[in-house]
Amino acid sequence: MSDTITIAIDAMGGDRAPGIVLKGAEIALQRYPNVRYLLFGAEGEMRPLIAKLPSLGGMVTLCHTSEVVADDAKPSLALRTGRQSSMRLAIDAVADGRADGVVSAGNTGALMAMAKFALKMLPGIDRPAIASFFPTQRGESVMLDLGANIECDAENLVQFALMGDVFARTVLGLIEPTVGLLNVGAEDLKGNNAVRAASARLRLAITPIQFYGFIEGDDIAAGTVDVVVTDGFTGNVAVKTAEGTAKLFSEFLEAAFHHSLSARIGYLFARRALRKLRMRCDPRRYNGAIFLGLGGIAVKSHGSTDAFGFANAIGVAIDMKVNGFLDKIRVELERLNEARSLPQPATL
Amino acid sequence: MSDTITIAIDAMGGDRAPGIVLKGAEIALQRYPNVRYLLFGAEGEMRPLIAKLPSLGGMVTLCHTSEVVADDAKPSLALRTGRQSSMRLAIDAVADGRADGVVSAGNTGALMAMAKFALKMLPGIDRPAIASFFPTQRGESVMLDLGANIECDAENLVQFALMGDVFARTVLGLIEPTVGLLNVGAEDLKGNNAVRAASARLRLAITPIQFYGFIEGDDIAAGTVDVVVTDGFTGNVAVKTAEGTAKLFSEFLEAAFHHSLSARIGYLFARRALRKLRMRCDPRRYNGAIFLGLGGIAVKSHGSTDAFGFANAIGVAIDMKVNGFLDKIRVELERLNEARSLPQPATL
Repeated sequence: MSDTITIAIDAMGGDRAPGIVLKGAEIALQRYPNVRYLLFGAEGEMRPLIAKLPSLGGMVTLCHTSEVVADDAKPSLALRTGRQSSMRLAIDAVADGRADGVVSAGNTGALMAMAKFALKMLPGIDRPAIASFFPTQRGESVMLDLGANIECDAENLVQFALMGDVFARTVLGLIEPTVGLLNVGAEDLKGNNAVRAASARLRLAITPIQFYGFIEGDDIAAGTVDVVVTDGFTGNVAVKTAEGTAKLFSEFLEAAFHHSLSARIGYLFARRALRKLRMRCDPRRYNGAIFLGLGGIAVKSHGSTDAFGFANAIGVAIDMKVNGFLDKIRVELERLNEARSLPQPATL
Repeated sequence: MSDTITIAIDAMGGDRAPGIVLKGAEIALQRYPNVRYLLFGAEGEMRPLIAKLPSLGGMVTLCHTSEVVADDAKPSLALRTGRQSSMRLAIDAVADGRADGVVSAGNTGALMAMAKFALKMLPGIDRPAIASFFPTQRGESVMLDLGANIECDAENLVQFALMGDVFARTVLGLIEPTVGLLNVGAEDLKGNNAVRAASARLRLAITPIQFYGFIEGDDIAAGTVDVVVTDGFTGNVAVKTAEGTAKLFSEFLEAAFHHSLSARIGYLFARRALRKLRMRCDPRRYNGAIFLGLGGIAVKSHGSTDAFGFANAIGVAIDMKVNGFLDKIRVELERLNEARSLPQPATL
């Protein structure tokens, strides 16, 4: 019998909370029968919804609070004044050890500020990073940072590479994931000081990382590497550019099938295959941005996702717990620190 | 009768030069009958190819040189040692006034270094930028910088906005193009110092620019603005990420149509509409990156394009000349400088 996993959920975060949040929790329960939930939010709103989701009964503990972090609240203000908010109480449950991870579809900046404060940073990590999966020609890859840090130095990038590597091993289940640094060209001289210095340090290979070197924007979707490392400004722009391009292509495709009677007939014959295509690119499948570098598991769901997407975000938190992400990253960080303090071999 | 336009062509630049370059010149001639070419390269290689393209005869002047800038040559080295190269001689023809613009599919860095040296910067512009068109949900937009400047300050970004604005007016033919600054969020507080300071200055509106404000990565393909302004690092990653995503989607789509007999039949019915879709997204249609900020017209073709793509790059250079881009940008820069030197209205 597998152990029970407890996930703390901010039931009030996101565009259609708490409805889609609770439905998402029910879907995730079907996939992970050993999960239990602590639900933080307005009891009066949650109770009637849960009554309609009978399989949740007995699997959830309601923790009432009437306070909610607003979507446009400044992170620093939310941190100071939101101590009784559903978001903060859910994070505190992880900090106290009552839950194994927290999932919220609320205000990203507030969630990051609160999680950093309550869960603390892992020793050896200076700044947290936001990571996410995306589909590629070769399967799936992970990219970080997607917006936690607007400016990054070489040390930050090296730490992101290490965290991304452990994440790909534990959650994607890869044996020797390759790690690439996003740049404007493959040659050593390309890019800014931060990426060049980070590349030089990753080549030293005192870590177990399979460092591929520099990659370019088109390598992301090609799946050239398993882990794409970049600063939060570039990563945020890149991931949103990819989303926008996929949407443009989908709309062009839909327009093409409305173009003529013949095209409409073609659509009827091909619709099953096209449904598979849509599933393959479905952004809900890749919902769940992970806050890496913290002393606890925190996953951010897209605010506008549906229940299926929210269930996937819960799944990411569960996978991180089941696969012992935190223990493994701690071991790697210790190893890295030991390697750094060793005397370097002299040149003969 | 319209005036003759002379384009200097580096016939030896690109993966399949001079073959596709000369064929591209022939295609462009069909579209622009009043264009004449100065072709720089190995006469012995060009002559037999031109003999097979009879419509080029009489429209071209061959300028022999046996030197070529290597694809992997360092820009600084190419600048010092490549004075007799096909690329440099083609640029010199623009500097001397013998040609109205130069087109090359060769080494981007070398082309930029040589063009900057020989054509000089426009007064009031500190650094050149690379600009290109791309398809959007609303039509076409232009983005800059795509890689000429890895790090940019607020002044650079403001200058890019001005150049992009004039470019959209003259070459895209827009009356009041909107200009957006690429960032990680729409709020004033988002982003790094450069984008925040650039935004504050563009809001001052001493220029004729319709400044939209910050945009995010997904706004690029949505066509939220006509001109996307960003630093060369982010712009390069964004444009390549979009290319990679479009390619991924195309391959997923092709795989979907091979998925079953029914899907194959569907493809037969829809193939005409799908051909239109492919044309709409065809990267060759958007071939031709423009070097803005120089005292002459210089266009870089993708190194791996075909004749159709090269012809489009020639078309961009011709459009810039026909629409008087250089004259118009000079007027705007003077107006901007005058506005800056005016005493600012005192607060009452």
